[in-house]
Amino acid sequence: MIIVLRPDVTEDQINHIIERVKKLGLKPHISKGVQRTIIGVIGPEDLLRITPLEVFPGVEKVMPVLAPYKLVSREFKSEDSVIDLGKGIKIGAKKIVVMAGPCAIESYPMLYGIAQKVKEAGAVVLRGGAFKPRTSPYSFQGLGEEGLKYLKDIAEKLNLITVTEVMDPRDVELVAQYADILQIGARNMQNFNLLKEVGATRKPILLKRGMSSTIKEWLMSAEYILSEGNFNVILCERGIRTFEDFTRNTLDISSIPIVEQLSHLPVIVDPSHAAGKWGLVAPLSKAALAAGADGLIVEVHSNPEEALSDGNQSLLPERFEELMQQLRELSKALGREL
Amino acid sequence: MIIVLRPDVTEDQINHIIERVKKLGLKPHISKGVQRTIIGVIGPEDLLRITPLEVFPGVEKVMPVLAPYKLVSREFKSEDSVIDLGKGIKIGAKKIVVMAGPCAIESYPMLYGIAQKVKEAGAVVLRGGAFKPRTSPYSFQGLGEEGLKYLKDIAEKLNLITVTEVMDPRDVELVAQYADILQIGARNMQNFNLLKEVGATRKPILLKRGMSSTIKEWLMSAEYILSEGNFNVILCERGIRTFEDFTRNTLDISSIPIVEQLSHLPVIVDPSHAAGKWGLVAPLSKAALAAGADGLIVEVHSNPEEALSDGNQSLLPERFEELMQQLRELSKALGREL
Amino acid sequence: MIIVLRPDVTEDQINHIIERVKKLGLKPHISKGVQRTIIGVIGPEDLLRITPLEVFPGVEKVMPVLAPYKLVSREFKSEDSVIDLGKGIKIGAKKIVVMAGPCAIESYPMLYGIAQKVKEAGAVVLRGGAFKPRTSPYSFQGLGEEGLKYLKDIAEKLNLITVTEVMDPRDVELVAQYADILQIGARNMQNFNLLKEVGATRKPILLKRGMSSTIKEWLMSAEYILSEGNFNVILCERGIRTFEDFTRNTLDISSIPIVEQLSHLPVIVDPSHAAGKWGLVAPLSKAALAAGADGLIVEVHSNPEEALSDGNQSLLPERFEELMQQLRELSKALGREL
Amino acid sequence: MIIVLRPDVTEDQINHIIERVKKLGLKPHISKGVQRTIIGVIGPEDLLRITPLEVFPGVEKVMPVLAPYKLVSREFKSEDSVIDLGKGIKIGAKKIVVMAGPCAIESYPMLYGIAQKVKEAGAVVLRGGAFKPRTSPYSFQGLGEEGLKYLKDIAEKLNLITVTEVMDPRDVELVAQYADILQIGARNMQNFNLLKEVGATRKPILLKRGMSSTIKEWLMSAEYILSEGNFNVILCERGIRTFEDFTRNTLDISSIPIVEQLSHLPVIVDPSHAAGKWGLVAPLSKAALAAGADGLIVEVHSNPEEALSDGNQSLLPERFEELMQQLRELSKALGREL
Repeated sequence: MIIVLRPDVTEDQINHIIERVKKLGLKPHISKGVQRTIIGVIGPEDLLRITPLEVFPGVEKVMPVLAPYKLVSREFKSEDSVIDLGKGIKIGAKKIVVMAGPCAIESYPMLYGIAQKVKEAGAVVLRGGAFKPRTSPYSFQGLGEEGLKYLKDIAEKLNLITVTEVMDPRDVELVAQYADILQIGARNMQNFNLLKEVGATRKPILLKRGMSSTIKEWLMSAEYILSEGNFNVILCERGIRTFEDFTRNTLDISSIPIVEQLSHLPVIVDPSHAAGKWGLVAPLSKAALAAGADGLIVEVHSNPEEALSDGNQSLLPERFEELMQQLRELSKALGREL
Repeated sequence: MIIVLRPDVTEDQINHIIERVKKLGLKPHISKGVQRTIIGVIGPEDLLRITPLEVFPGVEKVMPVLAPYKLVSREFKSEDSVIDLGKGIKIGAKKIVVMAGPCAIESYPMLYGIAQKVKEAGAVVLRGGAFKPRTSPYSFQGLGEEGLKYLKDIAEKLNLITVTEVMDPRDVELVAQYADILQIGARNMQNFNLLKEVGATRKPILLKRGMSSTIKEWLMSAEYILSEGNFNVILCERGIRTFEDFTRNTLDISSIPIVEQLSHLPVIVDPSHAAGKWGLVAPLSKAALAAGADGLIVEVHSNPEEALSDGNQSLLPERFEELMQQLRELSKALGREL
Repeated sequence: MIIVLRPDVTEDQINHIIERVKKLGLKPHISKGVQRTIIGVIGPEDLLRITPLEVFPGVEKVMPVLAPYKLVSREFKSEDSVIDLGKGIKIGAKKIVVMAGPCAIESYPMLYGIAQKVKEAGAVVLRGGAFKPRTSPYSFQGLGEEGLKYLKDIAEKLNLITVTEVMDPRDVELVAQYADILQIGARNMQNFNLLKEVGATRKPILLKRGMSSTIKEWLMSAEYILSEGNFNVILCERGIRTFEDFTRNTLDISSIPIVEQLSHLPVIVDPSHAAGKWGLVAPLSKAALAAGADGLIVEVHSNPEEALSDGNQSLLPERFEELMQQLRELSKALGREL
Repeated sequence: MIIVLRPDVTEDQINHIIERVKKLGLKPHISKGVQRTIIGVIGPEDLLRITPLEVFPGVEKVMPVLAPYKLVSREFKSEDSVIDLGKGIKIGAKKIVVMAGPCAIESYPMLYGIAQKVKEAGAVVLRGGAFKPRTSPYSFQGLGEEGLKYLKDIAEKLNLITVTEVMDPRDVELVAQYADILQIGARNMQNFNLLKEVGATRKPILLKRGMSSTIKEWLMSAEYILSEGNFNVILCERGIRTFEDFTRNTLDISSIPIVEQLSHLPVIVDPSHAAGKWGLVAPLSKAALAAGADGLIVEVHSNPEEALSDGNQSLLPERFEELMQQLRELSKALGREL
């Protein structure tokens, strides 16, 4: 932590700050320059973070030196985390993991049909929402537990892993009974009670980036889950909000190599929600792999015209299959496998 | 809803779209121009919104004409909603309502001291957090029910209304037992299950704008609460996220007159969270009233150096008192009262 | 400048950095902590800023301590700059300065009519564009020198100061012959050659904030002008670009008190361009004064339906007059004059 | 153009609007619905765009149907534009074009050394700035014409194409004498006079996207150049400004497929400025090609520690060479060539 003092700071004010730093058991280093005096405090910054040093008289600004997260960081664990999803599927290693399926589970036959298609095309995880966070109270809100049953049953028949969103801390136990991977949606990235609740399970957690979250905040939300003892976190970039209005969100492709640099956790991309338009899913999927993503989560629907949610961004099964073939070529050129 | 067709659209594609529109019980109007054909569908847009018209062959884009919210709109109710907070205090009328208090409830005497000061200065609602949404799992998370008890007890002694945040659907009943106004924080603006839960109470709800939410989405979140039967919603602008990094958030002052134009609900401003710096609280508070806000919610702390949360943005009681005097002058010039 | 070293930095790498710092004539202070070693260099940061320290082996990040601007800063000059606009009008003191007029100069009688009205209502500066920066090459681009002549002639008849935009370094001399204040538009805030050119005059310069510029960058652009010897710079906040799409831009009201804190230069607000809608001009104008702005620049048009540019955001003269009366009341309550 | 009327619109107001539309020679279509009446005007929208219909009494909002650009659009020209850069190099076809070199031209030997290396690695265009747009007036501003001479001389010796930025309309003629491709920097994307000036040449123009420009505005700026008769425009995505502060800008990777969809012009990516960190250049370059970019412009410096500009984001020649090898592999998998 660097405490930059105002040009008109007094000796008394400096002493007051130093006393406080020492009271916290930390060691201050003072450097007096021509234009500014600064106090460096190199040590456990947590203690300082909760002290509002900026309100101390004479302080101009406070600049943290260390990242606020620990367990998720490369410094804590230098080698990549490889997470076991079950049925022999691992994420975070050489093999790229593709998750696919409809936005919402609408009926048993619909889900079954799509599941078959995405499995044939090479997806190993089936996605499908039973609890849907919808901007409008008048939109389809999902089938609830009924949908979870369909998901589990179909996945068992087809030997697929499942991922589905949990929106409410009260539902974590229920969803965990049916699904292999619990998804935290973008709108809940900072629903801290929900993070603690899924942190208390040992399920793999797919943590989507909030649509206005910095990478640092995203990693802090992952830290919530790890701090509860659950290290099975998969990060998922799904676009951030900017002024650009042609796409629903702006896929922050740089976040992939940055996360790989800062954290040992695997990171995947959701090209469907990032773009909001199916025509962009293929180029964004390729870009994601090229940037180093460990996987993708793609919306596929056999009849987008009748989809109850997000039909505009869903690929038809045949387009998904074509994309998978292209991605397989690409993966090889990138030294990965699919 | 306006459906803009591609220049190369075929008659068959047009007929396919028209059939679908008619099947929904709606009436399409076709206009053929030199460069484009468009289909106008003027009627209940809800039915169309859930139909992914953009995936229909031949469609270039779909443009909604009507706002997606109803109950919160001026069209639904043209006169201002005045909400009764209890103890004779109303919000949304001529009199401006100031809410003040510490970010977090830290102890009984601390809260009591601050409550006395803000009451003397003219605040009528006491704020204080018992459940704190903190970015870091290692930060102070609030006193929980113990804090709520302090809040209720002190407010009763001093004849103040109380407002406190509820973060978890499981806590709504508990918080509603102690507090007069339930606050939904910015991070939970789209926690739809929480919205439904507070919508099921009849308590006044203070709904903060999400830090990356459009005004439309904010009103849609209010719509969730009203659609459950609770019309006592107070909107609270607290800044949005932009590239500007001098302030924690960018107070969107324009949202005040816009909300007044679009909705009948009262709207207030939180200058403390918007700025993140106490030195900006006074000018932003004045700007808020000048722009037409119905109230303010301000953080006040008697010892910011020791505050367990957000000390940097808290006013000292004496500065708050001074601000209140200035606001009283200002209110008169604006034709309001404080 | 604080140089934060990587946890795995070697002694050789540290020595390499220290040598470089010393070669620049600066004095490094090393602080070794448990988790990190940092090197503080307190002195003229300019020398360090042009050295890409982040590429030195062993460096994790570099954090500047001092602001990059000098001449515009409060540290350089602590008292407010009051700028003489001519004809006894000063900006930056107690009296608020209102500039008003049409977006573009369309004809002599039209400008004359509006000028009379805004003068009667209390505006002291007449605005009007002769060179218009238009997003589309097919839009009206302004009357050029002919427009400047109208502006000068009418202002002389009515004893008004004039402000008009200069877009091209080649036009600075020409525009300076006709206008009292030269305006640099938002799109040209970082047109550095244009800044140098207007810096070479001694005219007052109205420097609009770029639509995606930080306050720091805005002040750096002002620094360009001051560094050429022209200290007569008036800053103008006109909204920044965010995801909110109800307004054309988001007025960053916080920038007013921040600029006042960081700089001695006067700052005004353009509520017309910020909002893009005339219905928001009045509340935003009031908010601007309440936040401490030294003036306003408002678009007024006697026949917005026929305006060749920005009719949507122009006030009718009668609405402008009404606003001026409200602002006079408000100014008194704020301890200012209008 | 769709004109949405207010629910309380009167017949007189409707007639007033219709008359105006007809006076422009356009044909209005009225559709009356239960909740709203709308007027569709399908025809040359230019005429309507310059009419501020939103200020007409009774109008709620106006929604354009057509894109505001013409010459740059796919509708105007459906096949891809392939631009001849000279020396047998074309951009916009199967072969990917890589441009590389230092941010600024610092000296003849330095530029020569880097040029040799990037040529050997496979770059066909040499970049290097002689006129540098610098945020601070105290930073290195470029060597000017001297730098242009070095650039031309070295390129001739090594049989390379050159690209360099022109910042000032007064310099266009000069720069055009020395360079093969004229670059318009992000800060000048809406410097309309500069656009007209380069539009008057027949040189290929590299048009960088402004850091807060929408794709629509970017295409409108290209339209300026084409409307002057110069169809040789290459678009360059270089990142947009968002709240994320880990990178200097957020590379908007989606803009690549979107531009390809909307326009016939080639589009390339500048991974160096987008990221601001050399460690991200390789993954972003790969992502750019995977998303469909027609080329890259990459900063390379043989001694970043001594670079006078942007050293932090420059690749060492050996890293650039390694990247080029990877990109060659990748191009094949993508059905392109490099």
